[in-house]
Amino acid sequence: MRIAIPLFDRVTALDAIGPYEVLSRLPGASVHFVGVEPGEKRTDTRALGLSADLALSDLPDPEVLVVPGGYGTRALLRDAELLGWVRSAHETSQWTASVCTGSLVLAAAGVLDGLEATTHWLEYDLLESLGARPVARRVVRQGKVITAAGVSSGIDMALTLAALIAGDDVARGIQLAIEYDPEPPFDSGSPAKADRKLVETVTALARGEAEMASS
Amino acid sequence: MRIAIPLFDRVTALDAIGPYEVLSRLPGASVHFVGVEPGEKRTDTRALGLSADLALSDLPDPEVLVVPGGYGTRALLRDAELLGWVRSAHETSQWTASVCTGSLVLAAAGVLDGLEATTHWLEYDLLESLGARPVARRVVRQGKVITAAGVSSGIDMALTLAALIAGDDVARGIQLAIEYDPEPPFDSGSPAKADRKLVETVTALARGEAEMASS
Repeated sequence: MRIAIPLFDRVTALDAIGPYEVLSRLPGASVHFVGVEPGEKRTDTRALGLSADLALSDLPDPEVLVVPGGYGTRALLRDAELLGWVRSAHETSQWTASVCTGSLVLAAAGVLDGLEATTHWLEYDLLESLGARPVARRVVRQGKVITAAGVSSGIDMALTLAALIAGDDVARGIQLAIEYDPEPPFDSGSPAKADRKLVETVTALARGEAEMASS
Repeated sequence: MRIAIPLFDRVTALDAIGPYEVLSRLPGASVHFVGVEPGEKRTDTRALGLSADLALSDLPDPEVLVVPGGYGTRALLRDAELLGWVRSAHETSQWTASVCTGSLVLAAAGVLDGLEATTHWLEYDLLESLGARPVARRVVRQGKVITAAGVSSGIDMALTLAALIAGDDVARGIQLAIEYDPEPPFDSGSPAKADRKLVETVTALARGEAEMASS
């Protein structure tokens, strides 16, 4: 089973690495990082380079595609080559997935038309404007399409997907192998749980970063 | 605040990326990926390349060091240059941390002598043989040294560390920004919770991979 994860400039690393760490442990799976151009892609902070080993054209028909998010997704919404690849790969994929603002890319490719989907909690409006029906859940499945909420949610999504692909016992084994027994020291991981002032602060910071990224 | 994360051949990606995704969001922080030799390092699955931008000698005195794990750590236990850098950086660091089998490297450098520490649940014996006192907790702090359990635990460790560095509110904000509100679909993330047969299966698989990695 070939699993394609597209990388691009200003990708959020954990969006890609969470699912990679889970899905690469599926028996018989091979994960391939792909890009419009192969080569090193820098993350949203610019602090890390991740290698896209293959061009999109090297892997037109993966069984699974997982689109990560990041500020770089905004540019992808106008990237005909990437959107064409997503649209075409989705036609033959067994599973089409996204993490965080990766769902904006799926939506721009037409994959989410009329479907329930999720994204980072800051981007529900943008997701809706692209034709999906945003829901505030951590993992949303509609047929073969699975979208995950912000950044770290890709781990939960990928375990769900691993169970769908290989059964619950395999997914449980992967969870044990990556010792995913979360103990966050705080309970502020969603806007429904964090206090209002914190939500406002993080929103303002994120809007500033998004502006810097698009300037 | 300069945060150094060493990369090496056969690193486990999520060990490094979990803390990176949290700590890079600290106000005034700059995360630097370093290596004995700069350049691309392939992960334990070989499916991904991560860029070490700097040589160890470019950053001898980071305020924070975070050593990730992976099968590649076994070779590091005999790597005088890397161990010397860890030992020296630890002398002046404000915080010295590890994820998963990264604690084996800290121990081999002498950082954990007589201290309580944790690691991936499969490697308590090896950690003990290197002079630490293994404990089955997700995050273990001893003074300025913080060790985390397997793979995904680096996220919890880094949020704990973010709070120690910048206060609870900043850490809560980072947790919200990365939407870390975990909902694992199963409850098998530690050997204490998974059923015994599953623990045996995962142990056998991991021993096989470790043998392949060292051959």
